[in-house]
Amino acid sequence: MPKPKPILPTIGSPADVRALRPAQVTALAEEIRTFLVDSVSRTGGHLGPNLGVVELTIALHRVFESPRDTLVFDTGHQSYVHKLLTGRGDFRRLRHRDGLSGYPSRSESEHDVVENSHASTALSWADGIAKANEVQGRDDRHVVAVIGDGALTGGMAWEALNNIAATEDRRLVVVVNDNGRSYAPTIGGLAYHLDTLRTTQGYESVLSWGKRTLNRSGPPGRIAYDALHGLKKGIKDVVAPQGMFEDLGLKYIGPVDGHDEPAVERALRRAQSFGAPVIVHVITEKGRGYTPAEQDVADRFHAVGRIHPETGLPVAPSRFGWTGVFADEIVRIGRRRPDVVAITAAMLQPVGLAPFAAEFPTRVFDVGIAEQHAATSAAGMAFGGLHPVVAVYATFLNRAFDQVLMDVALHRAGVTFVLDRAGLTGDDGASHNGMWDMAMLSIVPRLRLAAPRDEATLRSALREAVDVDDAPTVVRYPKGALGDEIPALEDVDGVDVLARHDGAGDAATSVLVVGVGAMAACALETGTLLAAHGLRVSVVDPRWVLPVPEALVKLVGEHDHVLTIEDGLVDGGIGAHIAQRAGEQGITTPVQCVGIPRTFLAHATREQLTGSLRLTPQDVARDVLAALDGR
Amino acid sequence: MPKPKPILPTIGSPADVRALRPAQVTALAEEIRTFLVDSVSRTGGHLGPNLGVVELTIALHRVFESPRDTLVFDTGHQSYVHKLLTGRGDFRRLRHRDGLSGYPSRSESEHDVVENSHASTALSWADGIAKANEVQGRDDRHVVAVIGDGALTGGMAWEALNNIAATEDRRLVVVVNDNGRSYAPTIGGLAYHLDTLRTTQGYESVLSWGKRTLNRSGPPGRIAYDALHGLKKGIKDVVAPQGMFEDLGLKYIGPVDGHDEPAVERALRRAQSFGAPVIVHVITEKGRGYTPAEQDVADRFHAVGRIHPETGLPVAPSRFGWTGVFADEIVRIGRRRPDVVAITAAMLQPVGLAPFAAEFPTRVFDVGIAEQHAATSAAGMAFGGLHPVVAVYATFLNRAFDQVLMDVALHRAGVTFVLDRAGLTGDDGASHNGMWDMAMLSIVPRLRLAAPRDEATLRSALREAVDVDDAPTVVRYPKGALGDEIPALEDVDGVDVLARHDGAGDAATSVLVVGVGAMAACALETGTLLAAHGLRVSVVDPRWVLPVPEALVKLVGEHDHVLTIEDGLVDGGIGAHIAQRAGEQGITTPVQCVGIPRTFLAHATREQLTGSLRLTPQDVARDVLAALDGR
Repeated sequence: MPKPKPILPTIGSPADVRALRPAQVTALAEEIRTFLVDSVSRTGGHLGPNLGVVELTIALHRVFESPRDTLVFDTGHQSYVHKLLTGRGDFRRLRHRDGLSGYPSRSESEHDVVENSHASTALSWADGIAKANEVQGRDDRHVVAVIGDGALTGGMAWEALNNIAATEDRRLVVVVNDNGRSYAPTIGGLAYHLDTLRTTQGYESVLSWGKRTLNRSGPPGRIAYDALHGLKKGIKDVVAPQGMFEDLGLKYIGPVDGHDEPAVERALRRAQSFGAPVIVHVITEKGRGYTPAEQDVADRFHAVGRIHPETGLPVAPSRFGWTGVFADEIVRIGRRRPDVVAITAAMLQPVGLAPFAAEFPTRVFDVGIAEQHAATSAAGMAFGGLHPVVAVYATFLNRAFDQVLMDVALHRAGVTFVLDRAGLTGDDGASHNGMWDMAMLSIVPRLRLAAPRDEATLRSALREAVDVDDAPTVVRYPKGALGDEIPALEDVDGVDVLARHDGAGDAATSVLVVGVGAMAACALETGTLLAAHGLRVSVVDPRWVLPVPEALVKLVGEHDHVLTIEDGLVDGGIGAHIAQRAGEQGITTPVQCVGIPRTFLAHATREQLTGSLRLTPQDVARDVLAALDGR
Repeated sequence: MPKPKPILPTIGSPADVRALRPAQVTALAEEIRTFLVDSVSRTGGHLGPNLGVVELTIALHRVFESPRDTLVFDTGHQSYVHKLLTGRGDFRRLRHRDGLSGYPSRSESEHDVVENSHASTALSWADGIAKANEVQGRDDRHVVAVIGDGALTGGMAWEALNNIAATEDRRLVVVVNDNGRSYAPTIGGLAYHLDTLRTTQGYESVLSWGKRTLNRSGPPGRIAYDALHGLKKGIKDVVAPQGMFEDLGLKYIGPVDGHDEPAVERALRRAQSFGAPVIVHVITEKGRGYTPAEQDVADRFHAVGRIHPETGLPVAPSRFGWTGVFADEIVRIGRRRPDVVAITAAMLQPVGLAPFAAEFPTRVFDVGIAEQHAATSAAGMAFGGLHPVVAVYATFLNRAFDQVLMDVALHRAGVTFVLDRAGLTGDDGASHNGMWDMAMLSIVPRLRLAAPRDEATLRSALREAVDVDDAPTVVRYPKGALGDEIPALEDVDGVDVLARHDGAGDAATSVLVVGVGAMAACALETGTLLAAHGLRVSVVDPRWVLPVPEALVKLVGEHDHVLTIEDGLVDGGIGAHIAQRAGEQGITTPVQCVGIPRTFLAHATREQLTGSLRLTPQDVARDVLAALDGR
């Protein structure tokens, strides 16, 4: 028999997906899985989530007509299949500059709506779009939000559900993509509820157990499963309004096996016919069909770097140097401080808390994708005599700004926030860069923020942070590998002097270069370049940058020119605050601030961004010389 | 019969409350109501909410032992009764400087825990405190959170419930104080669910109807109600795990009549005995026992200024000048722009959207106490072709920082945020001052912010804001009465020149005074004072302050000294951004920034705060002269 002609290359738009015969759909799903493993292992990306939604995404495009109907993907990292079905088949430069974004992107396609990769927003987007349809009389259009069970643990999703449930006449379909996982397994009462829904319907429950057992036993088991699977057709897809969702006044369909494409289609068509808000509960498996992912209990290959497709093993060595140091130091701290506890928002593994959890299982709390609760419950723990360490990605702390301000700081709670992936992260695009934290946190009274420059200063910053018991402390560091240790020549009242260049005699213009955190390396190199032009240069690292240390302000007054370099927002950033403090003391030394401009950055490598933003030592030195020339 | 001796004066601590006989409890409740109406009508304050929780608060203190057990009040405006029962009987200076705070305050009492008046935080606090109790082996202590049905619509509350439900062994009691209202009636699916819970138990339902009908018919009806009321004792307080809460794995007790103190006590004792997280659903009436409040359908006297106790009519004229202008202008805009819709987070009346709602009922959306959803659903509406206007108190926008940034700004959504109560609000204390908005919003790319100085500029700012369809716009103004119109002498590329003083000859030092928003009046007066010292002074108002107008930066370069005056955070505020922009262009003119320091301000009048923060024209002028002398 000749090999059948591949279908994926023939799919240019959702209309092509709708035109497929059922047998072709099965083949297409298979091709997509192969394509994903093959291409994502080369570029890196969100492999597990996309393998889980192959059939679901196909069904969505067969039932609804995007862009007339609106599809919104929560978090967006599960949109690769959607991209493939909407004319975007070139994954060679996925997450690379000028290649496809790793998330939906309006500039790529009219089928993409939401680019924000922060979780739990899709229902609010969908509610807004449905309201707009209603106000403007577009009553025949559907809005479909696809949201994971993990993202449902975020407060925004609840706010939206409460609103969605308030009317009966908007055509809004909420697809709960339930894989029992956030990034890691989903926790909390909701997970319990979903689990109950899954298991109360006997056949689903049996099937689910059967499936897992059979799959483990290899191909024959697989065939047995498929046979068993056939049995349940016809009795599923029952409209079964259940518990929580019904209490809110929402119709409920499911649970549906998310890898049974015809079943998902049928459920979606029923949902489509309601003409009212409805939940479709779809059970999927993260990493489905890719053995290394299915066997990875911790995170099912949620996001991978480049990997060997056969084994799933990483091509490059660990990218998580900073995280590893935190992981180690927090365990050490935990050993001598029984009051230190850790909090994560569904990111135990990625933020480096797994070793702490292994050693102190009763002292770590995964709160779900719920940064607000992470911050405020931490304030409660501090009130109760503990010292909580909240470890999150820098960009996600934005969600808890009000809580850091009004619960932690106002109440003088000794809570330490550890911000991983601060600064440019690059390939995940605009919403993942950890560039907002310092400007945002500089608003918070009493807050103290450390930006360590290397392993030793990260360790000491953590130790110092957990010793503060009457204010929020923050330790922030970038993604990726650690550079070499940068020793201090001298400590001037808490400010580390990293280098001194004498310059061309006593009359030389003196420049103070302030490197914030990991930018110390750039500051050192810039200092050397400036010294080569005859300038007298001191390179310093204040380590604790908020509040601005008095010793640093004093140093500003002792120089002719000041340069600050930070991997955060330059507007209202650390440099700006140094300038403001100096100005208040009547110091007139110009402060030249270098950092990330206030703009949304498209995905690219960090090196590319550093170059295009003129954050390399060569660029910075050139800009300083130009500024000095201008005077 | 001699009049019985009053009980309230004998209550010095919760122990005294626990020692009362049942008959005395009834009398105490009566006395507290009289006291509240009498004292709050003199000082202003949150009358309705406190009248609703008299019996509930008494019962809490009889069943639990604060501070050994921890009581957390969500939002905190319903803590007056708690204050009375914990030794704080002097309400004469309620919400006045050095008098009692209108919210719990740790500096007042060991019985107070949470001072943050932003809604929906109590469950997170309680979860954190319960976790701390657990980690430290204090297994016998209870944590009790009192939260309104309105606050349950906030996402944080959901995040917390999801966590609370995750364990079975923490002694945590969630009291849902269900009065069917947020500030206004509670909306959404949750309200529907709670309503169902209320009405599914027949006797409660009958009783509730009966009560309302009978109460209206005066004293004989009242007696009939009391008789009827007696009937249900013994059959209520049943543990009735129900719907949503049970689905999360939470025990549920209720609903209980919140004005039947013995019934509430019994329910709380059952909850206490569980040793596991449990919801106690208490039905209360906001404004209970005070006829003017009970008859006020709109907000049940949620918060009042000084009023005549008999009639409930305000003593002083309207305090809401700015809000009134917005209310009027948005209706005008709505008439010519069918795409303009309005969103409120449970504050339709206080933010001035009632007239808009009356004229365009299908174009206004109350999303509940859910600022995150307000912002993101607005982005969805903008995607769908509408121009949403989100009207909130300035301090509450903090809750939606991430959504303004990542949903609205990143997606170039034309959404207008209208921030009422910006600047100092004073008597509601630290968490109500609208002092964070400008520093916070200055972080957001593309965002444009206007701070109008008077009625005319408020109207024009609104009109200009709704014309921007590719970026977030913000219009912010203070609480209270409008001052006189301040006409512009001239418009320099969008910057209004309000005054020019020639000074003592051409050699005089020139000062540019920049007044932000309502601080224009202060800027004008300061300008006059400076001119009297021979300085050449220009007073300007840029109206749109973010991004910093180029014309303003140019003006900075044309003066010897610049003074900025804003009623927002001075650190990273508008003045700081003006200085940073000027510095980037090589302009060396010193910029002296005046505004609110980065600190939490205790309650006081706005005038008192303005004085103590040196924000009066006299103080500002003095500080400018000192700075000029220093050079």
